[in-house]
Amino acid sequence: MTDLTAAKGVYAIAPTAFHEDGWVDEASNDRYTDFCVESGCTGITVLGVMGEAPKLDMTESVSLASRMIKRAGIPVIVGVSAPGFAAMTSLTKAVMDAGAAGVMIAPPNTLRTDDQIVGYYAQAAEAIGTDVPFVVQDFPQTFSVIMTPGVIRRIVQASPNCVMIKHEDWPGLEKISALRGFEADGSMKHISILCGNGGLFIDFECERGADGAMTGYAFPDMLSDLVRLQAEGKRDEAHDLFDAHLPLLRYEQQQGPTGLAVRKYVLMRRGVLASDAQRRPGVALSAKARAEVDYLLSRVARFDKRADVGGISRAA
Amino acid sequence: MTDLTAAKGVYAIAPTAFHEDGWVDEASNDRYTDFCVESGCTGITVLGVMGEAPKLDMTESVSLASRMIKRAGIPVIVGVSAPGFAAMTSLTKAVMDAGAAGVMIAPPNTLRTDDQIVGYYAQAAEAIGTDVPFVVQDFPQTFSVIMTPGVIRRIVQASPNCVMIKHEDWPGLEKISALRGFEADGSMKHISILCGNGGLFIDFECERGADGAMTGYAFPDMLSDLVRLQAEGKRDEAHDLFDAHLPLLRYEQQQGPTGLAVRKYVLMRRGVLASDAQRRPGVALSAKARAEVDYLLSRVARFDKRADVGGISRAA
Amino acid sequence: MTDLTAAKGVYAIAPTAFHEDGWVDEASNDRYTDFCVESGCTGITVLGVMGEAPKLDMTESVSLASRMIKRAGIPVIVGVSAPGFAAMTSLTKAVMDAGAAGVMIAPPNTLRTDDQIVGYYAQAAEAIGTDVPFVVQDFPQTFSVIMTPGVIRRIVQASPNCVMIKHEDWPGLEKISALRGFEADGSMKHISILCGNGGLFIDFECERGADGAMTGYAFPDMLSDLVRLQAEGKRDEAHDLFDAHLPLLRYEQQQGPTGLAVRKYVLMRRGVLASDAQRRPGVALSAKARAEVDYLLSRVARFDKRADVGGISRAA
Amino acid sequence: MTDLTAAKGVYAIAPTAFHEDGWVDEASNDRYTDFCVESGCTGITVLGVMGEAPKLDMTESVSLASRMIKRAGIPVIVGVSAPGFAAMTSLTKAVMDAGAAGVMIAPPNTLRTDDQIVGYYAQAAEAIGTDVPFVVQDFPQTFSVIMTPGVIRRIVQASPNCVMIKHEDWPGLEKISALRGFEADGSMKHISILCGNGGLFIDFECERGADGAMTGYAFPDMLSDLVRLQAEGKRDEAHDLFDAHLPLLRYEQQQGPTGLAVRKYVLMRRGVLASDAQRRPGVALSAKARAEVDYLLSRVARFDKRADVGGISRAA
Repeated sequence: MTDLTAAKGVYAIAPTAFHEDGWVDEASNDRYTDFCVESGCTGITVLGVMGEAPKLDMTESVSLASRMIKRAGIPVIVGVSAPGFAAMTSLTKAVMDAGAAGVMIAPPNTLRTDDQIVGYYAQAAEAIGTDVPFVVQDFPQTFSVIMTPGVIRRIVQASPNCVMIKHEDWPGLEKISALRGFEADGSMKHISILCGNGGLFIDFECERGADGAMTGYAFPDMLSDLVRLQAEGKRDEAHDLFDAHLPLLRYEQQQGPTGLAVRKYVLMRRGVLASDAQRRPGVALSAKARAEVDYLLSRVARFDKRADVGGISRAA
Repeated sequence: MTDLTAAKGVYAIAPTAFHEDGWVDEASNDRYTDFCVESGCTGITVLGVMGEAPKLDMTESVSLASRMIKRAGIPVIVGVSAPGFAAMTSLTKAVMDAGAAGVMIAPPNTLRTDDQIVGYYAQAAEAIGTDVPFVVQDFPQTFSVIMTPGVIRRIVQASPNCVMIKHEDWPGLEKISALRGFEADGSMKHISILCGNGGLFIDFECERGADGAMTGYAFPDMLSDLVRLQAEGKRDEAHDLFDAHLPLLRYEQQQGPTGLAVRKYVLMRRGVLASDAQRRPGVALSAKARAEVDYLLSRVARFDKRADVGGISRAA
Repeated sequence: MTDLTAAKGVYAIAPTAFHEDGWVDEASNDRYTDFCVESGCTGITVLGVMGEAPKLDMTESVSLASRMIKRAGIPVIVGVSAPGFAAMTSLTKAVMDAGAAGVMIAPPNTLRTDDQIVGYYAQAAEAIGTDVPFVVQDFPQTFSVIMTPGVIRRIVQASPNCVMIKHEDWPGLEKISALRGFEADGSMKHISILCGNGGLFIDFECERGADGAMTGYAFPDMLSDLVRLQAEGKRDEAHDLFDAHLPLLRYEQQQGPTGLAVRKYVLMRRGVLASDAQRRPGVALSAKARAEVDYLLSRVARFDKRADVGGISRAA
Repeated sequence: MTDLTAAKGVYAIAPTAFHEDGWVDEASNDRYTDFCVESGCTGITVLGVMGEAPKLDMTESVSLASRMIKRAGIPVIVGVSAPGFAAMTSLTKAVMDAGAAGVMIAPPNTLRTDDQIVGYYAQAAEAIGTDVPFVVQDFPQTFSVIMTPGVIRRIVQASPNCVMIKHEDWPGLEKISALRGFEADGSMKHISILCGNGGLFIDFECERGADGAMTGYAFPDMLSDLVRLQAEGKRDEAHDLFDAHLPLLRYEQQQGPTGLAVRKYVLMRRGVLASDAQRRPGVALSAKARAEVDYLLSRVARFDKRADVGGISRAA
């Protein structure tokens, strides 16, 4: 089994490709899987918030994850967040049987106190099985659950199967430093820290001690290069690359269905997805927004040719 | 098919009975079903918040609801709230096929604006099928979603299959008057209004125009009597009965697992459930709390013999 | 100076009386002050949530509090909650100079983590001056801030000037037991626990170890009797008295301006306030609601003559 | 009086300068005022969220605003948000008497329904005086209040003195288009739209019809240039300038005291403020964070010499 505590690089957050009529588009999902591998990703995370997971029923969820696990050849983490442990456990069992490297669990947005958060993860860790590696998703902007570094340490120390943090707090740089400080002073075991939040701070997050990115920005190839450059100590080159993408990356980093619509649109322009459709309820980009994204792509392309998607949008 | 817009009386919110080890206790659930019928309930609602629905997986949910539908012989409404429409639709189809009278849908707690709320119910109404009657659960204390009377009217008018409000706003008396006013002035079609919130205002809710109760207070027999007395115009008698129960009813009306623990404990004392166990994660009443409930039962029993459960708790 | 850690009995939460035109009604506020003393209250708390404090400017606030302090002859606690420490400190200094026994501080509803809550009170305790006794208001339903017993202990232990909890969590009985347990095991110094939440659980709160009530139910005389009966070990008598009032008390216990409207209306019917007006923005009771309260008063009066306010409402 | 409905350009959100000991630093505030004028700002907004307004008492607030109004010679808008209308009205009167161009009002975070939001602004508009121009602050990330375009239209149409939106919703581009569409179809009168959110989308916001920026990014001179370039139709130049600043601007755009700490630090590095101190409770940048900001400044300086603040931080 993959030791996820040692995970580094880029775990792409997979969108789920749909046909215009709402059915899962398997060919596009396959293409996305291949695209991640070719982009240098070290893993993929499927059925996350940006994967429209709640719109899939259990059968679709298991099918999608299993197909990706089989095809990818790199570790796949599966989002199993659910309103109750029964559904979480069922999905976990199915995807672990299918070969998942681990699962990701977001906190229900009713949690408030430190003890509630720690208690929830202790229960979840036991419910899914103490042999199943799990990732804590720390994303206060979306889940309204605020975990201090001390709370994360309590979760990590309480559950041997807690192997990774998907870090997307904001402001969050000092949190990474604090967690790595806990490891340095021996008060917390080592875990992998992969950063989300659309990559908006990934340039500095790597410098603070994060192991890489877990996000779905439509250029995982850029993210892979960035993490590699930082690992090689090529700081200025890393920032040059990041800065060239930042205007687009920032545009994609809009919460909820709007950000996802941008992401899917770019992936369509790059030839990965056949459509940028979201399953209902979703949003479609306005003509103005598509033109804005096209403009941003053309500007990124001056620096990074991978953004040169041709002058005419297939979706125009 | 039952015309739920004409529903009156008491729809009991069914708890889900579990054995101490966490497995569903079918015998107790059967006994509860019979108990509701004997108590004069006109319907049952299963898989609601107080039914620990999120702790059940899909198979258990369908099995539990189907068994109750088959046994009850009175209309059964099934809670199908889910984080996405895929799971909601699957469960709805299964239980409607099994003979459910309709489904109940709570709003996700991310909804904020009027349009978001109205839009959500329009999408849900379409997702489950426009031939499936549904109940809107209006419970701001738990869901953090606030629906004005105007918003409820928009939902009702937009969806022919919206047949009932489970009213549990608080303060909520003026809302009932406002909704009945909409019906009177012709701006909203008639729907059934059944009131929840543990029954804490059911005495006056009936007087304001509600059709009855949809709540799980451990004395559905009292609630049935109360609604009948109000319908017969016996106001003082209705209040006398209600007031005798209010100290206990108030004690049971504690949000979340504590209130449920009281409810299950009383149902156990009344011989309906074999155990007051909640599936994990849950809470158990402290010895002090059990003694307090026993004391309250003994006081209610001075007025209503149905509360005379014997001097010694089986659970002591 | 009054030792508030030893406070017992009833601290009435004072409403602020206004004339119909919105100006402060000093005569009614004086009458309320006298009424509290005559009702056996051991203290008064002014400028709380139900005192419409945010609608008063600083001059009015200080004037109102000072007048009450001077007149009452019993300890007066003043609500000084404010969005920042500058305003809090100014008001605290003014009312302490005027003879207040202490101040009450509610948590801003942006606090989430344990450390944020503890940190806030540490800063507040220092900002107001470490010689100023303060009360922590623990009211999650209104403030959305959840304090575990452990967090309260941290606050109490960190600040020698923390002298009291206004307990209005719900469910909250086990929290009282937990806090008294901390005192028993020596891990927390003794503080006074006075209970709010409209008095809805005051019957059992006293039995769990609370020192009394801090709430504004329009019958502080009943609350005084209740606390005394419980102190004398007359449990059944205490519950008989409480139960007689519970239907009305429950009706008054509606969050926000509706509950306040009921309270002011009853105080007007009892001859204490000249008007039930709220300063804008506020709500007025509907004719139906007034009739419901009149009905409840008449029912309470069968047991407690103090509720016999005459057959005709002055406000009808 | 300035017609704020015609406001264009950049209204700088003023931080409040403090000495290290917490006292207001008048010299720095004066320097900041002059700096805004020299930077081409068309107005200043003082006592906003990022102005640490809640930490100032009433006297300090009035003094700070009055001094800035007198010195600036350009319109000054004053934040008057308060938990109640009494304090809001007092502050409004004081600053309007001192010559403010208008006031800004944020919604209390307890508002949920459309009617609550519209009602609040109607009451506020009347409370401050219908002759006082006011700005609606639309900032869901901070206030948790979500205003649809339709709700904003209702507010604008209901109150003749509503003159401007401080737009900082996110995603928010379509909202600007929707509001300008309302003006085009005649359903809403013209108002000024100035954009906040740290400027993170100001490049496209101008293209969507916004009149400019109201934000506190430490380079108001860049923002002025950007808005001017967009007005002149120099789109590519505008984006080139924006993109050069985006890495730093993004870093400053961290919610709460962290973002403010970055802002004050850069203003200190630029020689405007003598200190980056926040009044307690506040945060100080870590040494790592300061080094990161220095690095970002050096990178911006390759394109924009105004970011060349010298190699050695005064604060190092």
